[in-house]
Amino acid sequence: MADYRVPREDMQFLLQDVFRVDQDWARFPALNEVDMDMASAIIDEAAKLAEGLIAPHARAADEEGVRFNDSVVTTPANYRENYQQLAAGGWVGVTANPEFGGMGLPKVVSAQYEEMLCAADISFSLYPGLTAGAIITLDAYASDALKQLYLPKMTSGEWTGTMCLTEPHAGTDLGIIRTKAEPQEDGTFAISGTKIFITGGEHDLTDNIVHLVLAKLPDAPAGSKGISLFLVPKFLPDADGNPGERNAVKCGSIEHKMGIHASATCVMNFDGATGWLIGEPHQGLPAMFTMMNYERLGVGIQGLGAAARSYQNALEYAQDRLQGRGAKATRAQDKEADPLIVHGDIRRMLLTMKAFVEGGRAFSTYVGQQLDIAKYSEDAEEKARADALVALLTPIAKAFITDTGFETTVIGQQVFGGHGYVREWGQEQLVRDCRIAQIYEGTNGIQALDLLGRKVAGSRGELVKPLLEDIQALLAEPVAELAAEYEQLGKAVQRTEEVTGQVLQQVAGGDENVINSVAVEYLHLLGYVTYGYLWLRMAKTAQPLVAERPYLASKVKTAKFYMARLLPRVESLAAAIADGSQSLYLHELEDF
Amino acid sequence: MADYRVPREDMQFLLQDVFRVDQDWARFPALNEVDMDMASAIIDEAAKLAEGLIAPHARAADEEGVRFNDSVVTTPANYRENYQQLAAGGWVGVTANPEFGGMGLPKVVSAQYEEMLCAADISFSLYPGLTAGAIITLDAYASDALKQLYLPKMTSGEWTGTMCLTEPHAGTDLGIIRTKAEPQEDGTFAISGTKIFITGGEHDLTDNIVHLVLAKLPDAPAGSKGISLFLVPKFLPDADGNPGERNAVKCGSIEHKMGIHASATCVMNFDGATGWLIGEPHQGLPAMFTMMNYERLGVGIQGLGAAARSYQNALEYAQDRLQGRGAKATRAQDKEADPLIVHGDIRRMLLTMKAFVEGGRAFSTYVGQQLDIAKYSEDAEEKARADALVALLTPIAKAFITDTGFETTVIGQQVFGGHGYVREWGQEQLVRDCRIAQIYEGTNGIQALDLLGRKVAGSRGELVKPLLEDIQALLAEPVAELAAEYEQLGKAVQRTEEVTGQVLQQVAGGDENVINSVAVEYLHLLGYVTYGYLWLRMAKTAQPLVAERPYLASKVKTAKFYMARLLPRVESLAAAIADGSQSLYLHELEDF
Repeated sequence: MADYRVPREDMQFLLQDVFRVDQDWARFPALNEVDMDMASAIIDEAAKLAEGLIAPHARAADEEGVRFNDSVVTTPANYRENYQQLAAGGWVGVTANPEFGGMGLPKVVSAQYEEMLCAADISFSLYPGLTAGAIITLDAYASDALKQLYLPKMTSGEWTGTMCLTEPHAGTDLGIIRTKAEPQEDGTFAISGTKIFITGGEHDLTDNIVHLVLAKLPDAPAGSKGISLFLVPKFLPDADGNPGERNAVKCGSIEHKMGIHASATCVMNFDGATGWLIGEPHQGLPAMFTMMNYERLGVGIQGLGAAARSYQNALEYAQDRLQGRGAKATRAQDKEADPLIVHGDIRRMLLTMKAFVEGGRAFSTYVGQQLDIAKYSEDAEEKARADALVALLTPIAKAFITDTGFETTVIGQQVFGGHGYVREWGQEQLVRDCRIAQIYEGTNGIQALDLLGRKVAGSRGELVKPLLEDIQALLAEPVAELAAEYEQLGKAVQRTEEVTGQVLQQVAGGDENVINSVAVEYLHLLGYVTYGYLWLRMAKTAQPLVAERPYLASKVKTAKFYMARLLPRVESLAAAIADGSQSLYLHELEDF
Repeated sequence: MADYRVPREDMQFLLQDVFRVDQDWARFPALNEVDMDMASAIIDEAAKLAEGLIAPHARAADEEGVRFNDSVVTTPANYRENYQQLAAGGWVGVTANPEFGGMGLPKVVSAQYEEMLCAADISFSLYPGLTAGAIITLDAYASDALKQLYLPKMTSGEWTGTMCLTEPHAGTDLGIIRTKAEPQEDGTFAISGTKIFITGGEHDLTDNIVHLVLAKLPDAPAGSKGISLFLVPKFLPDADGNPGERNAVKCGSIEHKMGIHASATCVMNFDGATGWLIGEPHQGLPAMFTMMNYERLGVGIQGLGAAARSYQNALEYAQDRLQGRGAKATRAQDKEADPLIVHGDIRRMLLTMKAFVEGGRAFSTYVGQQLDIAKYSEDAEEKARADALVALLTPIAKAFITDTGFETTVIGQQVFGGHGYVREWGQEQLVRDCRIAQIYEGTNGIQALDLLGRKVAGSRGELVKPLLEDIQALLAEPVAELAAEYEQLGKAVQRTEEVTGQVLQQVAGGDENVINSVAVEYLHLLGYVTYGYLWLRMAKTAQPLVAERPYLASKVKTAKFYMARLLPRVESLAAAIADGSQSLYLHELEDF
């Protein structure tokens, strides 16, 4: 696999020029101390770790994988040392509360750091990634005593965190979980049940692992309103807060998977393990969603990281590999063939990748900025608007960045031809590793259901408005050189409004199936429109800067490519949505 | 992985009702002895092998893979015995010339047999599959002496065949291969060079392996017009025609790949190996294309087989797995959740799979019928028309069936949620195995270039006409119940004509880049239109038969689904094609 190089210029351009995040930081008291120089310095440090420490081991870690023996999980060579080094630098607590030792950095910065880590090695990134999510949940819902005991160790990376939701019979449908929590006399709970697909449920990176576990109290109401959240450490902290007695939770086995071979995906058996309630009884799902929402953008960023890496590799290969002849005027007469990149179809593939990668990076920055506003703004109206945007954009970020990310890695494999199918080049690993991001933390179908059902229909279309306002604000001031592209985006926005109206009408008409019948196409439609918005915004920002920064010329060109070749997908999505649930419910069971 | 069940009813429906292939057989003297009963009996026998012998070992074979040690390749457990049993039944020579022991069956029958084999285990299918291709090439181009010596042993399956094209620096671009053929005094040639990605280049299934090798003679013109084809056996036949002296060709290593782990992908080193010229000097590429064209439909069928298997598994899972609640009216009150199949998004996924699988099966039968007409008809005009259709449809069959097949396997994995990512269920193996079919035997991008460049533009659009005539003939007699669908297909055909005209105009205008810039979208557009044609043809055929065969009701419903949800993709493809090469050539090299 080629060396990974962090796309610093593009990251800088987004923060500094497109989203002007330093203006936010200056306004928000909690972020007063952050400025662009500091952010740049931090990103440079992170880049060094991703490029020099993590990325070089990803290929070997995939081959070696995690090993399981008698409830002990061993991670691949270098994982423990590299994790320790990452933790020592404070990188597990990038966004964590400074009160417990966190860096307290804005999400827009940590999103870029996360992209690097994922591009370097998704498997590795999951250990600190899930810990960061667990920290946020505990910070929001745990008692002060628990926070004091756990958060410093988790923030410093000494202990990692997990989220234990899925059970063999209950994945998407958490309402039917069976894990039980029996109240004990000392105020703790005895947790019993089996959880599966637990990322980092067991490993050898740290001395303790803190599980956040969904379980049902004896008096729990049925369904998803009867789920509580518990903290269950692998080792119970002793009087000094160090790992003491072993808790009754063990790893029963690990999964053998398509990809992320170096990430331990564990079956976890809780056998009367001691746990502490986090938040209120039966309020576990909303609490866990704090973590889930954080993770969902993070999973989107996994798709982005894999896609970005695949693009770098494919571009390098397309420039180096000589194969076939381009148009007569451009032939290298001294060589027996021209580089792949002269061919139209190779360019189509590379530009599709580039448009998705840089579009995805802009999207994760867009969502990150809204998360920062929602968290740090002191203006209630601004905060509410950001909250609404986050609610709308989170499922799109998770599903659309990973769907386009997967498409990107598959294309990146295709550019390599047969070499893309062979393991040593690394392109196929990116496909395998990226694939999980479309599935876990709520499948992309579930994200779509959340978007169209809970968010769009649930608000009778109100939640779409802030996004459309942002887009309309851009469209109101077109750039002459991009007039045609502005018009194309305008049309796509109009289609979005039509289609949204159609769906809401069908819902109002009592069609119970329509939302789940068109949700995925609707999410994709909003995704393409939002990427279109971000591409025009980038192009508009770049244009006056091209003279001083020539590499920005590419932004205007790629925006034109995006509008001509990818945005038109909106049309077929809109046509499919117009069908509603009709053609999906003609079939009786025996007709399948 | 669930048991594989051959879709006999659908296969029968296609042969007997949709394509009426028995009417062809009755007309063609060489196929006089074949009738529907015989074909059915043969397909039933093949189904037993696929279901009972091959399929049960696919999962374990993937885990075990092929092993390499000191130029010896060992295939997984059961492979040798199963191959021997297949060969003993005459199944390697299904389409082969009866003169050398072949069954001489029509392609429409062998296409169904191939689908079963691929659905059962793509890796396994490649050993007999490539042999069948080599047999055809030798039958068409080798001298009588070579035919007598090799074809009986290959047709019986005692010896297997390979095609050796690719070299480390030359994949798509065969014009620059470096393997040399030095004429020897005895009329043979000494072959020297390195070939890579050679499927079945070495293995332990049979006592000899017959390589068909592209190489350059000393006086070869430069480029693709200087390539000759040679037969190079692993063991030189002795006076009795049995494997004798070891030839100077050895396997240097095998590739570690994303999938088809049980297929040996070999680096083959030819070190002055003895070879025999096949066909005329410098005419190796057209000869090899006999094999390639055969293989290309075969590779399309690999995509179909993987997709068909994935659909069966996903359907079974969606019926069994209880998760979440459907519309109120349909809830199973005695269960804590409803089966997945009640959910709109699951239905969307299953029906997309079904539409691609049954559409692909119809497509491979359509192409198979044209191949049979081209080979067996004694009417010159009919033959010429079939040849034209085959030329047009072959690249579409290879690329579109595998692209939609890959999409299908990815969806089939998604239906399983997290369980789709875990190896034991087999869904992820189908994704990995299917992926290669988009890459080898000419990448799908190269297929598209062949279609739009050589076939469509090369004939100034003439070659598209027989396909459009077939479609127009159907459209001329619409079915009342499918009126809307006929209209939709009619519009898509109109788009096809417009788009074809646009591209031809741009070519005529001197745009050297346009073909390679829009070829993939153009191939997909023709693919969607052709599947639309086949779906309406199936629906029209099925409708009057539903009363006696209720399972055919599904054809009409799925045709409606296809038109409403998948055919609209034509619109975005047409929009992208309209852009021509424009947005792909804005970028300078430094802009990527």
